[in-house]
Parts: sequence; C-alpha cells; structure tokens
Amino acid sequence: MASEFELIAKHFTRSLRPLRQTELGVGDDGALIRPSANCELAISTDLLVEGAHFFGDVEPESLGWKTLAVNLSDMAAMGATPRWATLGCVLSVDDNGVSPAPTDKYANSSDDAWLAAFARGFFACADRYGVDLVGGDTTRGSAGATTFGVTIIGEVPRGQALRRSGAQIGDLIWVSGNPGRAALGLAHLQGHVRLAGSHLAECLDALHRPIPKIELGLALRGIASSAIDVSDGLLADLGHLLIASNVSARLQISDLPEAGLARDAVLAGGDDYELVFTTASARTDEILALATQLKLPLHKIGIVLAGTAGAVKVFDHQGVDITLTRRGFDHFE
Amino acid sequence: MASEFELIAKHFTRSLRPLRQTELGVGDDGALIRPSANCELAISTDLLVEGAHFFGDVEPESLGWKTLAVNLSDMAAMGATPRWATLGCVLSVDDNGVSPAPTDKYANSSDDAWLAAFARGFFACADRYGVDLVGGDTTRGSAGATTFGVTIIGEVPRGQALRRSGAQIGDLIWVSGNPGRAALGLAHLQGHVRLAGSHLAECLDALHRPIPKIELGLALRGIASSAIDVSDGLLADLGHLLIASNVSARLQISDLPEAGLARDAVLAGGDDYELVFTTASARTDEILALATQLKLPLHKIGIVLAGTAGAVKVFDHQGVDITLTRRGFDHFE
Repeated sequence: MASEFELIAKHFTRSLRPLRQTELGVGDDGALIRPSANCELAISTDLLVEGAHFFGDVEPESLGWKTLAVNLSDMAAMGATPRWATLGCVLSVDDNGVSPAPTDKYANSSDDAWLAAFARGFFACADRYGVDLVGGDTTRGSAGATTFGVTIIGEVPRGQALRRSGAQIGDLIWVSGNPGRAALGLAHLQGHVRLAGSHLAECLDALHRPIPKIELGLALRGIASSAIDVSDGLLADLGHLLIASNVSARLQISDLPEAGLARDAVLAGGDDYELVFTTASARTDEILALATQLKLPLHKIGIVLAGTAGAVKVFDHQGVDITLTRRGFDHFE
Repeated sequence: MASEFELIAKHFTRSLRPLRQTELGVGDDGALIRPSANCELAISTDLLVEGAHFFGDVEPESLGWKTLAVNLSDMAAMGATPRWATLGCVLSVDDNGVSPAPTDKYANSSDDAWLAAFARGFFACADRYGVDLVGGDTTRGSAGATTFGVTIIGEVPRGQALRRSGAQIGDLIWVSGNPGRAALGLAHLQGHVRLAGSHLAECLDALHRPIPKIELGLALRGIASSAIDVSDGLLADLGHLLIASNVSARLQISDLPEAGLARDAVLAGGDDYELVFTTASARTDEILALATQLKLPLHKIGIVLAGTAGAVKVFDHQGVDITLTRRGFDHFE
C-alpha cells in the first residue's frame, strides 16, 4: 500500500497546480498565506463522515466536490470570498488490509482509483471557486469509517460579513434556489419516494453535487440583515438564525417553492446548501433584480416577528397554523 | 443522548470564555478574525485517530491537551505565534446506542464526562498558549472510531517564518529537549520495555501531554536556517527537512541525548514534538544561550552536507557508520 506521504504527494499536493494567493503550500509544517489588507477572515470547519453524511458506495468524484462545497456554503452565508482550505482524510482499509474484489461496488477510500476520483472532484470545486488547498493530513481508519474534515478560510471587507444575528422585526425572509431537492433525492435512494426523469436528475444532482451560493452571498453584503445556509433543513437553520437574532417568524406555506409530498423535504430536509436570509421590506426590488441577474430563484417565504426567540409558525394557504415537529437533522438525535 | 448542538454548546462554545483576538466566535456559519498588520498566517491541520494515534482507553483530559498540542508544535516549527484553532470531533457511540457499564475502562467519547474531560484538557492547552477556539463540528461515528481534527492558524511577521527548505551545507543540526521519551513511554505501555520511577513518569508525560516548543520556535526566527518538528521520528523528520533543502546530513550518535536501548526510540520514535533545526555554525553561542534562557536542552547532533537529498548517515562514537532502516512512523506503512 502506498504510504501516507506518497498518497498526499500523489493526490493532494499542488506542485502541478498554480497557487493563487498562497506564499507556501502543502509540504512544510504549515502553509503561509498573506491576507488582503482591510479584510476580516471568515473561518469554518465541517466534517463528512461515512454513515452519517454519505454512503460508503457513493461515487467518489461527487463526494470530493461535495466535501469542499458544503464548506464553501458557509462562506456564502457569511458573504465571504473563499480563498484557502485544508483537508483532513481518514481513509478506510479492510480490516485484513486487502482491497475488495473489483466486482464489489464499494472500493476502499485508500485505493488509488478511489482517491484519484475524490481528488478530481475536490479540485474541480476548488478551481471553480478559486480556492487554494494549503494543508492536509491523511491517515488510516477502520473499514466503513472514512471521514473528511475541511477547514475553509475566506475574506470579507471589515465589518461587512453577513451574520445570523442581524434579523430585525418586520424583515422579510427569503430562501434561494430549490430547497428540498437533496432530501428528495436521498428519499428516492432510500426507497421512500419514487422520482423520475429530469426531476430525479435534479434531486440527485442537488444531493451529490451541491452548488454553494457564493455569488449570492457576496451580492447580499450591504443588503441582507442576516443570513445562514441550509444544511440541517430550512426550519432548523431558520431557527438558528432567529435565535441568534432574538426574534420569531411566520412562514406562509403557499410561498414555499414546493408543495404536497415534497413540502416535508423543503421544510425539514437537510443538505440543501441554499441561503436563508432576511432583508428590510424596502429591499424587495433589489432582491428580485438579483434573482434575475444571478439566474437564481429567490423566494419570499415569511416575515420576522417579535416573540419567543427561534419560534416559527407555518401557515398553509388557507391561513391555518400547521404543526411541525421535524426540525431538521441533528447528528446526535 | 444530548444532541450535536447541545454537545457543542455545553463543551466547546466560548460564551463563558474571553475571546482574545476574535471578532466572532463559535455560533455563526463561521468565525471572524482580524489578522495583525504585516503578518503572514501559518496554517496547519492534523488528525488524531483512535487506533492510529491513541488508544480508546486513553485518559480524555490528556487527549484533549495532546490534540491541540500536536498542532501547536507545527506552529513552533514555523516560528509562528499560535492564535486560532478549529476542532472537528467524530465521537463514538456503541453500535446499540447504549453507554458501557461504569466498570468498563473505556467510556464512549460522546459521554458527557468523557467530553467534559477532553474539553478541559483542550482548553488548558489553548489557554496556556493563548489560542482561541473559533469553530468546530461534532458528529456521531462508529464505536472505536473516535477522531479529532484540528486546524491551527498562527501569525508570523512577513518573511520571517521558519521553513524546512533553508538548510545550507555546513550548517549545524540541532534537536531540542529529550526526543525518544514518548516512544519509550509507548513501548512501556505495550510491554516492550519496562521503565520505572521518574523516568517512567517523564516518558508517559512526554507521550500524553507533549509540550509544544512555541517559545523556542519564536526565538529561532532570524537564527535558524530551517526547522521541522519531530512527529514521525527524528530521522524521518530530519529526512523531510533535508529533502526540502536538497542536502544530506551526517549525525554523530554520541551526541544524541540518549544511548543504548533508548537510541532506537530517539532516532525512530514518533510523537516527540521537539524541534529539529539548522543554524550556521557561527550561531552556536546564541543557541547555547537560548538553551539556558529557555531552560531547554538544545543538542548539536550533526552537520549538513552536500550529497543525495534526504540521505542521513549516522556514526557511532567510534566513527563507524551504522545502518539504520527504521525511519519513523508512516500511517500507511
């Protein structure tokens, strides 16, 4: 088996890739970066764990993309330009140290072909969003326990970062894109629903290759009063934003981008990586113009109210308060 | 079981702790930091994986200390002042979701008492070295697959970082402290050697609560021509430095801080977190003065030569070239 150093050198060092904004990349005790003047740095870290966040037989190139994309989504929610990332990999080997037969669907994540595909997806995402991979660590883990950890660092002009805590009473609540698709794609794979055609393709794409809303986050600086990305589910993440802002909210279900069977996925499904944000109602025209400019649906779904921090009331199109208990995905529930 | 959010809030948020150099800490989509003017940022990331880096029954407070300390050691090797860290935790639960009986030595790492002790050790180290924990992620993993991932960010005045690549032919090679103790402590725990008394205590301390050589790293700025920390073993890490500098080395075994049975541990044992560094021979007096000032042994162990990059020849006290094959710990060997 290739050594740790060989694996890193082969798949993750950037000797053959240009470093865009980095003094010293992978290969020393640490990387060296020079932040831009008058910027704050936004920092976020996320884990992707086999069994909890992805199946062992997931297509590795998509997983590589997603591993970085979910972290970029945090930068989008801060209104930050993503710049640098580090990647920790715990790769699986069979307990007997033998790779499975080629007919097995699952390949060990320390296999050369698996890692090459993962790295291809990861760097496709890095290149798309201008991110330098500046550090990493790779080690052997148990079979079935493949884990990736990414730390992402972005830049934002001083004082301009979007925060969860700025929502004001009377602000409008918006959500981007098509939340719920990833959860529907997952439900399809699990046999809970049956999708077909282009809708199936869109939902699986949303699940496997989420698009972080970087351009939207940057455009919302100076417009949005608060923002968060939808990773745990719309209601759950809106709840986090409302608690941070010490306000409550009322949503109008008829304003939601999906209805019927898909409504649960919209409200409670995770893994969407859309942005939920608030604005003063006077900014409505700017948001609608932004939707056109970015070719990205931006849905007005509710209003910020006083009341118990974090409380969300959801009304259907007849004005009936519908009780909702599922509040998104918590990895320890 | 406590939820992911509750675990993070209870053990890892700093609401009750002062943030020293951070605009916005844990609790938003990301943290916000403001780097000092005219500094570069040094960034490093490390994994600690159950089975590969620690035993499941390790004392969690020590593990918390070590999880941060091994990352701080990378900052020491760069000559950087550590400032900010993120922490990813994959915590174990039994497959049946039940905590083991109190008589079991091993407690699940998602147990409240285990996590509280881990956090105590982690923050003891953070407070000792002035580091703010600014982000994290916590999720459930398989039993026996507890994993921690830390990303550390430090500051260093522009152009002054210590690198692996600066060693010059004729430079002296130095190592700090007492390398080999951690490996001896591990060998004792595994029954390969039997230590006793204060020597045992020192070796176990080196293994479980390593002291990152931050002050030494800072003092070596402008003096050392290259530096690396000893995590994989003295020979292995010196080899990395020599390859980066495109030089070879000759070591004099009689100059090593340990001899006899302990020599293998010194040369090949990992987990030391001492610094190996090179200086022009004219800086010898400064290094000796530094040893006195820091109350830290600094051993001159060899000299940088031309020749095959990375090659190390080791001579015993009679000038005999002794062959060495073990080159430190590679997690995929």
